[in-house]
This record gives sequence, C-alpha cells and structure tokens, in this order.
Amino acid sequence: MPRVVVDVMLKPEILDPQGSAIAGALPRLGFSGVTSVRQGKRFELELDGELTAERLAAVDEAARTLLSNPVIEDYVVHTDAEATA
Amino acid sequence: MPRVVVDVMLKPEILDPQGSAIAGALPRLGFSGVTSVRQGKRFELELDGELTAERLAAVDEAARTLLSNPVIEDYVVHTDAEATA
Repeated sequence: MPRVVVDVMLKPEILDPQGSAIAGALPRLGFSGVTSVRQGKRFELELDGELTAERLAAVDEAARTLLSNPVIEDYVVHTDAEATA
Repeated sequence: MPRVVVDVMLKPEILDPQGSAIAGALPRLGFSGVTSVRQGKRFELELDGELTAERLAAVDEAARTLLSNPVIEDYVVHTDAEATA
C-alpha cells in the first residue's frame, strides 16, 4: 500500500516557541551543541491502489489546504520509499 | 551547519485520534482514496560544529529521553542530507 509523508514546518521567519523551549531545555538536561530546534508536524497517509501523479497532486492539494496553514507553515510531500514495501 | 531531523510517531498499536479525525475529514472535503492517516511530530535540530558519531549518539539519546515518549512513541533520527548544504 503506497505511503505518502507530509512534513509541515513553521516558516523560518515565524517564531517557534515550542522549539525554543526545547532548545533551552537541552543544555540544562546535559545535551550541549544544539543551536536551534524547530518543531513541526509529520503526517503519514496510506493510499489505496496505485500511487499515480494525480493521486500525488491530490495529496499535495490536501496538504496545502487542510494539513498546513499556508500563512505560517511550509509543507513538503514525499513518498516514503522504504516504507512502501 | 549540520541539521539532524527526529521524526516521532505513535507506535502502530496506539490509537491515533488526530490521525483518525483527519482520515475521516478528507473524504468529506473531497479527497478520496486515503485509507489511513497517522499524525506525528518532526523536530529539526541544528548543531554547531561537525556531525560526529558521538554527536549523533547524543541526539539519539535526547530523542529517546526528551523528544519522544518511549511508552507510546517510536522515533527515527536521520541527517537531512539535502538541507545540510
């Protein structure tokens, strides 16, 4: 069954308080050397049938309109080749 | 600056109400053919200096103890080769 992954991250110019909180906590907890953390979302979609170009375009449209907020977020759609087997 | 990505997803046997809600909403909104959706988290960590094996091991430890809940979540650490340039 084909699997498509949609990664949604805040745009670089948008403040990410969750990520900043993690970046601030890491040194206190003994992990140094991390300069920046950004937190986003990852969606794994399983499709039935073949993964055609039209299906991918539909997933892209869903990612743009439903899974992300285009005002503050960027998204990337990619097929999870290893997981498709 | 090397970038490391940590993907945290609920274990397959754990119910994912957010993902189920999205999977239920997609057909109502005109996107058919999606059988299952799982929602997880994606962390992008920027490290200073070189990406050594020890640094990666430290990130793995941070992912296991801080970024994920090992009782209900699985994580994957990978270097974001395209984004490292």
